[in-house]
Amino acid sequence: MDAFPVTSRTRLRRKPGRGSYDRATVHAILDEGLVCHVGFVIHGEPFVVPATYARIGERLYLHGAVANRMLRTLAAGVPVCVTVTHLDGLVLARSAMHHSMNYRSVMLFGIATLVTDPEEKRRALEATIEHMVPGRSAGTRAPNEQELRATSVLVLPVEEASAKIRHGPPSDDAEDLELPFWAGVIPLRPCPLDPVPDEHTGPNAPVSPEVTSLLERARAELSANRS
Amino acid sequence: MDAFPVTSRTRLRRKPGRGSYDRATVHAILDEGLVCHVGFVIHGEPFVVPATYARIGERLYLHGAVANRMLRTLAAGVPVCVTVTHLDGLVLARSAMHHSMNYRSVMLFGIATLVTDPEEKRRALEATIEHMVPGRSAGTRAPNEQELRATSVLVLPVEEASAKIRHGPPSDDAEDLELPFWAGVIPLRPCPLDPVPDEHTGPNAPVSPEVTSLLERARAELSANRS
Repeated sequence: MDAFPVTSRTRLRRKPGRGSYDRATVHAILDEGLVCHVGFVIHGEPFVVPATYARIGERLYLHGAVANRMLRTLAAGVPVCVTVTHLDGLVLARSAMHHSMNYRSVMLFGIATLVTDPEEKRRALEATIEHMVPGRSAGTRAPNEQELRATSVLVLPVEEASAKIRHGPPSDDAEDLELPFWAGVIPLRPCPLDPVPDEHTGPNAPVSPEVTSLLERARAELSANRS
Repeated sequence: MDAFPVTSRTRLRRKPGRGSYDRATVHAILDEGLVCHVGFVIHGEPFVVPATYARIGERLYLHGAVANRMLRTLAAGVPVCVTVTHLDGLVLARSAMHHSMNYRSVMLFGIATLVTDPEEKRRALEATIEHMVPGRSAGTRAPNEQELRATSVLVLPVEEASAKIRHGPPSDDAEDLELPFWAGVIPLRPCPLDPVPDEHTGPNAPVSPEVTSLLERARAELSANRS
């Protein structure tokens, strides 16, 4: 069965119909995100820090400077919760209390460990760039030895995870359906604006092909869904 | 001085130049977001849950069903960390390791308490709708007594908070500036697609004015920044 086992941490308590333990669903939500929120505990208190990440198979990678407090805390072997959320739409009902959001989120639990193998470290960093802009790693200078030494990469196994999804129209109470209020969904998507070259690239340099591809993919999806 | 006091939890350790304790900056980041990530601890383990919210003055409100585990946990008076993050752009450098994200985030720490005053509860729920779509609360049925009884509203004081912001171009090393790679920023914005009426509203009903205003504001900003 291609699903994650349900644990006390991942069992969905409210609205279980919105939940999923399906591996492909969890992977797709992780892969579409660019920022995760990393939760950890210091002296009994919670911290939630935004971070970039990448997934290779059942391994989720985080990285940062060796001195980074979050990475040093996690590398000590404490429990971590990584959450990725996509806001897909505003759900406007006829009643205030049935307003909602359409979203897809994943909560991933586990213990992260420091990646010590230099090849895995390189692959994880390359995957992080590719996750951001597919094709980009070929169009940059790869990390050198000094940069690799200054960078910590952590791996969190994708083993204990669940997804939660709300989609579709509002669910107004039957007695509200005749109220004269517009009800429906305003879909939301992250939308790229025109790329802004830095001063050394300059405004006349051609944009590189992986950037053009990324913009074209995003704009094709937008124009298919906008008047 | 219109800044939040620096505490051991909010002191920025890495890249303090990206940090801010300015009250107006923190408020603006909170007000622009639609989803926060709420971190809390159960049996020593971290949980990070996405949620909607609203701010009124120095009070941040969360709400949900009375049975909601997160709200019940928080209402017991445990430390909470609420993080709001806006991803503003992909930062593409000439070297892999200088790739980054432009973002604005707030981390807010404290202890949340249950709102028991019915008027404050109503105001908080109204603010949550207004935060989502300004003007919407006038175009819906307000919560009734039964709905209010079934809903918990929590308030977290906005007292211990910090912002972290990265903006601007990539910061490549001097020796990489001549490399033949396009470098710059791809700005990102949340973009509304065409509204999708539910089946009772139907495709021919006029969209309500607050929805039209929201779409016009978003599209004006986008068209000013896209070719």
